[in-house]
Amino acid sequence: MVEKMLLRSDNCAGAAPEILEAVMRANDGVLPSYGGDVLSVDLAEKFAGMFGREVAFALVGTGTGANALALSVVTPPEGAVLCHEKAHIRVSEQGAVEFFTGGAQLVGVPGANGKIDPNALENTLNTMPGSMGAARAPSCLSLTQLSEAGTAYSLEEMKALAAMARGHGLRVHVDGARIANALAGSGGSIGQMCAEICVDILSFGATKNGALTTDAVILFDDSLRDELAVRQKRSGHVFSKQRFLAAQWQAYLEGDLWLKLAGQANDAAQALVRDLAGIDALTIEHPVDGNIVFMKLPPGMLSSVNNEEIPFHVWGPDIIRLVAAYNTPNEELAGAVTGLRQLCAASLS
Amino acid sequence: MVEKMLLRSDNCAGAAPEILEAVMRANDGVLPSYGGDVLSVDLAEKFAGMFGREVAFALVGTGTGANALALSVVTPPEGAVLCHEKAHIRVSEQGAVEFFTGGAQLVGVPGANGKIDPNALENTLNTMPGSMGAARAPSCLSLTQLSEAGTAYSLEEMKALAAMARGHGLRVHVDGARIANALAGSGGSIGQMCAEICVDILSFGATKNGALTTDAVILFDDSLRDELAVRQKRSGHVFSKQRFLAAQWQAYLEGDLWLKLAGQANDAAQALVRDLAGIDALTIEHPVDGNIVFMKLPPGMLSSVNNEEIPFHVWGPDIIRLVAAYNTPNEELAGAVTGLRQLCAASLS
Amino acid sequence: MVEKMLLRSDNCAGAAPEILEAVMRANDGVLPSYGGDVLSVDLAEKFAGMFGREVAFALVGTGTGANALALSVVTPPEGAVLCHEKAHIRVSEQGAVEFFTGGAQLVGVPGANGKIDPNALENTLNTMPGSMGAARAPSCLSLTQLSEAGTAYSLEEMKALAAMARGHGLRVHVDGARIANALAGSGGSIGQMCAEICVDILSFGATKNGALTTDAVILFDDSLRDELAVRQKRSGHVFSKQRFLAAQWQAYLEGDLWLKLAGQANDAAQALVRDLAGIDALTIEHPVDGNIVFMKLPPGMLSSVNNEEIPFHVWGPDIIRLVAAYNTPNEELAGAVTGLRQLCAASLS
Amino acid sequence: MVEKMLLRSDNCAGAAPEILEAVMRANDGVLPSYGGDVLSVDLAEKFAGMFGREVAFALVGTGTGANALALSVVTPPEGAVLCHEKAHIRVSEQGAVEFFTGGAQLVGVPGANGKIDPNALENTLNTMPGSMGAARAPSCLSLTQLSEAGTAYSLEEMKALAAMARGHGLRVHVDGARIANALAGSGGSIGQMCAEICVDILSFGATKNGALTTDAVILFDDSLRDELAVRQKRSGHVFSKQRFLAAQWQAYLEGDLWLKLAGQANDAAQALVRDLAGIDALTIEHPVDGNIVFMKLPPGMLSSVNNEEIPFHVWGPDIIRLVAAYNTPNEELAGAVTGLRQLCAASLS
Repeated sequence: MVEKMLLRSDNCAGAAPEILEAVMRANDGVLPSYGGDVLSVDLAEKFAGMFGREVAFALVGTGTGANALALSVVTPPEGAVLCHEKAHIRVSEQGAVEFFTGGAQLVGVPGANGKIDPNALENTLNTMPGSMGAARAPSCLSLTQLSEAGTAYSLEEMKALAAMARGHGLRVHVDGARIANALAGSGGSIGQMCAEICVDILSFGATKNGALTTDAVILFDDSLRDELAVRQKRSGHVFSKQRFLAAQWQAYLEGDLWLKLAGQANDAAQALVRDLAGIDALTIEHPVDGNIVFMKLPPGMLSSVNNEEIPFHVWGPDIIRLVAAYNTPNEELAGAVTGLRQLCAASLS
Repeated sequence: MVEKMLLRSDNCAGAAPEILEAVMRANDGVLPSYGGDVLSVDLAEKFAGMFGREVAFALVGTGTGANALALSVVTPPEGAVLCHEKAHIRVSEQGAVEFFTGGAQLVGVPGANGKIDPNALENTLNTMPGSMGAARAPSCLSLTQLSEAGTAYSLEEMKALAAMARGHGLRVHVDGARIANALAGSGGSIGQMCAEICVDILSFGATKNGALTTDAVILFDDSLRDELAVRQKRSGHVFSKQRFLAAQWQAYLEGDLWLKLAGQANDAAQALVRDLAGIDALTIEHPVDGNIVFMKLPPGMLSSVNNEEIPFHVWGPDIIRLVAAYNTPNEELAGAVTGLRQLCAASLS
Repeated sequence: MVEKMLLRSDNCAGAAPEILEAVMRANDGVLPSYGGDVLSVDLAEKFAGMFGREVAFALVGTGTGANALALSVVTPPEGAVLCHEKAHIRVSEQGAVEFFTGGAQLVGVPGANGKIDPNALENTLNTMPGSMGAARAPSCLSLTQLSEAGTAYSLEEMKALAAMARGHGLRVHVDGARIANALAGSGGSIGQMCAEICVDILSFGATKNGALTTDAVILFDDSLRDELAVRQKRSGHVFSKQRFLAAQWQAYLEGDLWLKLAGQANDAAQALVRDLAGIDALTIEHPVDGNIVFMKLPPGMLSSVNNEEIPFHVWGPDIIRLVAAYNTPNEELAGAVTGLRQLCAASLS
Repeated sequence: MVEKMLLRSDNCAGAAPEILEAVMRANDGVLPSYGGDVLSVDLAEKFAGMFGREVAFALVGTGTGANALALSVVTPPEGAVLCHEKAHIRVSEQGAVEFFTGGAQLVGVPGANGKIDPNALENTLNTMPGSMGAARAPSCLSLTQLSEAGTAYSLEEMKALAAMARGHGLRVHVDGARIANALAGSGGSIGQMCAEICVDILSFGATKNGALTTDAVILFDDSLRDELAVRQKRSGHVFSKQRFLAAQWQAYLEGDLWLKLAGQANDAAQALVRDLAGIDALTIEHPVDGNIVFMKLPPGMLSSVNNEEIPFHVWGPDIIRLVAAYNTPNEELAGAVTGLRQLCAASLS
């Protein structure tokens, strides 16, 4: 692979200074371990404020850990999780969800631009379970916000899908690895979103948006608190020095830093869209609702060039993915535009 | 529980300045994610140097993650892991090993001072498997160094136990959550240890000894590289911004900082032993080979006092555990001695 | 549900007299348990003869057990099994495959008449795995013969699909719960089929075709023998008095009784097709290659009648499934035709 | 191994004529599958009568299936099952319980003659869970009746152990693979036993005592009915032609045939004890409360003879196990006595 790709991903960026400083400050003194530290205790209040109610939470180190842990709390081994057919949990986590749930099935539901189509969901809900009561009963709907395609569901769209799922007795999970980018774009509030669509459990991302190494699971169903705690421990996701994760969260949420950072990434993506509009050969593949831009190239262009010479993340046939981070340098943005121009030139010559 | 206990655990300490600074430095620039960063690449060389050979490794966030992941790579679901009956993996990780392995059995072997008794191991090896070839076949021997009792195996002791296990076709794992304290005490080299006892896979601890949030799995059997990589991903232990874990390791190993830190913790423990020797009512429960001191109190002393008033980690009936960290303040050491004197006084009055 | 449905399923029939008598005969004397009995030993030779080579086998009690056990031997937890989107293993076994494999993914591939479409398979193979090498790698192709739709793949069709899968490094499994009906229809040989399409492991059905309570797993890869044995034991599918299963197999295979029985069931299905052709309102949904007939009814007919009055197995909207067994009484066949006539009349009046 | 061993096991015997005839009779007619048949429906009433209340039940094909399925219904993955250290579920089922439960721990409790020692149980209950609330919480007590040693708990002993377990919030399981032999010996009633010790779930054996291929799980906690049904299906233990299992149970229970058969086996064991008393070199290892006799041979006797010449099941050093079945031929009993005489002679010469 190319050692360094342009706009490879938002997790190629470092951490925001405010968050780094919080980690420094958290280093002082002797503190209880495994979440007994004052930073974790304060964080509980902070979350309560954001969500307008007490919540249980688990601070973990990775997005895959957050998603798999969250889904295992609301899905029995014999259950099924309905998600978009291209959802990260289904195609990119190498079976983490099946591992954590003990074998639940990830059922893909189609839909344009990475968003579940309501009719397709209705159809899936009505055709499952199958004969002899032995088919999988769908247990949970998982909505990815931002979606894999870089698009965002509107609050109304999420409410409709969630209501449909609840009507069939399903739980609702939101994979919010990039929830900040979706909210920064729409101006919505996370508390309102979770309340209005009655989310049971949320994967709340921070790593991709300026933190060092932490995402969180936010649980809204108190009856599942112990289940979450036990599963977090069994899967090795309880940090002894949790202070260092709590500190990242404190700074991340302080003064809505998380929304500010996401806004910066989104702005960079919009700037990119404007600059790329000038290249006729290129078309934008999906609406850009956050910090991810998918560009469609002329058929065969990529295959006409030596792979080693493509300084971009090739996502599919004739498709490349460009992701802006909160601190993407202007040179990298400019470099990407230049690089794409050159690719077009090279292939057309 | 008491909000703040004296010498509660080494994971109540913050991180060493050198390691914190390395994390700061690692923040600069755009780097490949998921281990493609230069710090991770350099770390591979560093490990190769330490172990005198190339190794595969996984940087994870917790000791439980390291142990469960490591054991799942060398133990099939139908296998059994032989470990000390009090081993952390068996009694304190809430089934993480069974979860990661898919149901392997943790068979406890007795032995004084937290160390497996060779005759007991021989006996266990000879009596397993049982009738009809349907019993568990022991697959792996797990040695904890430091042991749960704060004692260290000598190199000869480990070699003898490992050889016995190999003679029966078992793999060998070392739970080295506190390996630094054991080596700092004995002056041994980790490379020599792994080579002479032919370790298959090692849980290499750092968090308890001055790092922020990282332990590692070191794999010596190349044929299992993919197995390790797949399991690390499925269990949610692959960090996208791995640079922040690699940086901790770089600093931890640089100039043998890890052994220096462990030495400081061990010295503090020895100082503690000397000071406590002055209190007649107390006796030391196990040899102190590292940074952990178990004190035996007069029968009933603890129960004679209000639990809330005991500022120590009660480990068992009449037993408390005191753990020194690389940076334990002298006041805390002194406070522990005073606290114990008062306990004795209170109960004798 | 209706206490007794017409042509509900071939597993509503009793056992063939020859098989029952074999069970009686097997009762005499004291025999080694767990497969050490002479009937099981002889069976190994019988299978070797049928398949033109030595094979490992596991005699189990159910088709679900056979499929889940077989797939768990050739699919790692992080792998994916490609099968028809309506395959029994995917929609009707309540996660048995995920349970036995430890979380493998069942990926549905579309295709008309219950048969995998070659282009759809090619497409699935080319689009998996996805980004970051973290997507599921397809590990195994599972072909259902007879298919869920009652159709049979031709030998050429199976060879083409299997070759395509092997080209991508997949294993090949055949769910042969009704393999006898497929072969009786085509006149093919099971040995030739397994050899020409290079089956790795086969679920060989007997229960639905005149046995009492046994299906078998036939393994063609010697290197996986122990894996099969261990998994059979762990899942509770090793019978202590295996003589009673082996006896059923002896009689089932003796003089190709199994093909004779399947032929009878197929003939009954064909007779049914002829008789139903006389009812204008009905159309046949899929080609009838074995003993299963799917009839399409006029839209809304079923919903126009009280459910309790429908003496048939309703498979989907306006679809009923009729299954003939080797010994289906003529009265039941006639009853089904009459029943359908009445349904049409009732709904048209 | 010796092709045919004397008194190898009660599962080397065929089925009782009454049970075989019931299977024959069950063959007539077209019946609903998967438990909808009239024999299964009637069996529910029969069980209700025996246990003095409605119960849920699962008819499975093997004892391992019954135990693993039963324990998975009452034990969470993070839980622990307390059982005798030599219990079959712990040492002889190759991890079936861990597989079905998803990783529960089998904790061995010592005790003479295969029976759990109350003090040892009390001690285990008081020392689990361990530090940090992260140790395994014991979830279930499993009592084996007859025990592995061929001894039986008295009703009082079982009540005491069960009460102790309940006092700590544990469930109670009885592994009754040979419950018939225990009851036939004591004259107790199974209904009274289950009621007085408040069994949550019972593995009710039949195969070893004259049935062909069936054991049952009897569930006394209605709230777990669905859990049992789902797990039975997922593990492949739901038989489509359940009529053939239900029929065995009908005959097995009819007129207390099961107790009569067990009595015959017990009588044969007692006769054996009397005859062997005449051989000075031999001593009986455990009280003979059922149909199993363990004989202790002079040290080294077995090793002094060529293994191939030992026509017995060697259980341990200098220990052989002799098991009588309901229909063990007198010649085999006599042969065993002669065989042992010869062994003694051979080794003493």
